[in-house]
Amino acid sequence: MPFAFTLEKEQNGARAGVFDTPHGPIQTPVFAPVGTQATVKAIMPSTLKELGVSLVLANTYHLYLRPGDALIRDLGGLHRFMAWDGPILTDSGGFQVFSLAETRRIDDDGVDFISHIDGSRHRFTPEKSIQIQENLGADIIMCFDECATPDNRAAIEKALLRTHAWAERCVRAKTRADQALFGIVQGGIFLDLREQSAAFLRQFDFPGYAVGGLAVGESKAQMYATLEHTTPLLPADRPRYLMGVGSPEDLVHGVARGIDLFDCVLPTRLARNAAALTRQGRLNLRNAKYATDPGPLEPGCTCYTCTTFSRAYLRHLVQAKEILAHNLLTLHNIHMLQTLMRQMRTAILAGTFADYARAFLTTYRPVGEPDPHPLPVVPS
Amino acid sequence: MPFAFTLEKEQNGARAGVFDTPHGPIQTPVFAPVGTQATVKAIMPSTLKELGVSLVLANTYHLYLRPGDALIRDLGGLHRFMAWDGPILTDSGGFQVFSLAETRRIDDDGVDFISHIDGSRHRFTPEKSIQIQENLGADIIMCFDECATPDNRAAIEKALLRTHAWAERCVRAKTRADQALFGIVQGGIFLDLREQSAAFLRQFDFPGYAVGGLAVGESKAQMYATLEHTTPLLPADRPRYLMGVGSPEDLVHGVARGIDLFDCVLPTRLARNAAALTRQGRLNLRNAKYATDPGPLEPGCTCYTCTTFSRAYLRHLVQAKEILAHNLLTLHNIHMLQTLMRQMRTAILAGTFADYARAFLTTYRPVGEPDPHPLPVVPS
Repeated sequence: MPFAFTLEKEQNGARAGVFDTPHGPIQTPVFAPVGTQATVKAIMPSTLKELGVSLVLANTYHLYLRPGDALIRDLGGLHRFMAWDGPILTDSGGFQVFSLAETRRIDDDGVDFISHIDGSRHRFTPEKSIQIQENLGADIIMCFDECATPDNRAAIEKALLRTHAWAERCVRAKTRADQALFGIVQGGIFLDLREQSAAFLRQFDFPGYAVGGLAVGESKAQMYATLEHTTPLLPADRPRYLMGVGSPEDLVHGVARGIDLFDCVLPTRLARNAAALTRQGRLNLRNAKYATDPGPLEPGCTCYTCTTFSRAYLRHLVQAKEILAHNLLTLHNIHMLQTLMRQMRTAILAGTFADYARAFLTTYRPVGEPDPHPLPVVPS
Repeated sequence: MPFAFTLEKEQNGARAGVFDTPHGPIQTPVFAPVGTQATVKAIMPSTLKELGVSLVLANTYHLYLRPGDALIRDLGGLHRFMAWDGPILTDSGGFQVFSLAETRRIDDDGVDFISHIDGSRHRFTPEKSIQIQENLGADIIMCFDECATPDNRAAIEKALLRTHAWAERCVRAKTRADQALFGIVQGGIFLDLREQSAAFLRQFDFPGYAVGGLAVGESKAQMYATLEHTTPLLPADRPRYLMGVGSPEDLVHGVARGIDLFDCVLPTRLARNAAALTRQGRLNLRNAKYATDPGPLEPGCTCYTCTTFSRAYLRHLVQAKEILAHNLLTLHNIHMLQTLMRQMRTAILAGTFADYARAFLTTYRPVGEPDPHPLPVVPS
């Protein structure tokens, strides 16, 4: 069966599974690096494979504008274009239209926007988003939705009605059988709206469900509470995708609350800002104390960057604005998240996830909010 | 014997040999990519190894200014710092002082200059250049010399006297036995000055000799004529190094005139300007005609870039200003020159170099000067 999700083990709410796609199985929980413009920035697809990456995300909005989805279709689709033969997920373009495009007009039919590249005018509708995503040809495609600020209940309610109507139009517009269309549960931090949204979307029996509209300004406590309430509303035999989330602590807390898929620009964006993700927290190489440091970026890490170069050398590359700094830090950051996800999966299968998560969160110092949030208490 | 040069075969003036260094043998003729700031821009050392690169150049001027040669010494030397365990060559810093530094005062003792990075004041002398190069610890180091404009005879004569006096001081200043100090023959395009310079330098019995002051504004015909006259003046049992030269046609013409070593920023710099070196000439991916081209960068090329991606994809990366464009084009350009050098070596050993060179120059279209220069006629 295409797009079958096999739940291998559930432990304390955390899940290990396998999601089948036309480009191979995805072992979950999984983190997908973001390849905005059909490239995960500063890393070759062969290196992604070596790092054990299985799923890559690409952005519909960016690829529609440049080089154009019709061109990518004519060149054999996105897999061939970017030389990635593993599974790909494309977003609907909605989030970028609402956050990146210069101006916009929203009505019940769709969204007018102006390209951030050249100022040209465009219109996305649910049907248009599906058409573009079918041209790109990813394994997983997403419903076009409206993202509203998470704490404004009136705006969220209005956007929710529209998102539901658009989800129905996306289901009807879809023509390709080799793509899985995921529904997106919205509702901000309002738990009754999340219930409404989950109930509405379940009627379409989507092969997967995303939790959208989080990590957009609400507190960590609000995000975790919303997740904890929402994931049990989703069918257990379908993968659950938390969009745009990828800090190490959020990955652990997300998995602990039953999330199977994540994506985020964090590891690649931090790398281009000279920052490394480590199991102790973030490390910024611009700090002068690393100028003479002969040790590896992260002691004990087995990635090429850490087994080959010193912090002093990596800092020199950063200070000298060398491209190799981006390459080596990106490689390390993706390796760090890959290792974390693989270890969580192994722990779930071994029945030791709660211990693993607690131990990780004890030594990891997140940015901004120093107090660790408690893991959810789930009866075994 | 350290730094032994074994001449395996000479054919029509072209030479195949092996130069032994503390970090392994260098099979010649060889092209050295330039790692200005202790990194060959946009490529990992592991990839350089895979491409068959044996010798890498680094710039004394840049590393002295940032991160500092004492720091590199304290961290175990340049090989360890940049994680390159093969042979390294450092230049003397002279060329950059004369071309990059903001202002300068030259006298018989040395050169005052102002850093292009932060405006700080510095002074290089022959002794200082050797001290820095000993701190860096490359296998091959160079005499500190004065570069003058190639067609101004009076300036060249004055610089030549200084260069010779400085060479003698470099020989005296040198203390490390695990580094080979090369002399640099100067004299611009004036053949009698080249004769004087070669005769003067030969008295020091250097383990290798560079031909300096070429590819700095003179015509190709002048450069080739100067080379043709100069290389026979150098001892046959020592490697000959043509500094700062690396276009495909110059490599072929240089090898045909008895040069064994080359270095140049060309393959890496062109890559960052969206240009590829191919066996037909240069190809610039900014050209709109490549936007829909499904073919490889260079048909028949076996590098990762050409066997994996289309011109349309590579052009998209260039247009979208993606770092991966630099990585993939750098990889291809270095692969192209590596292949050319390896094929020339094979041809020399097989006794077919003249045919190989003629065939290559027949299909290769150089930039700027459309008429191919004749290969030198050397009695077999």
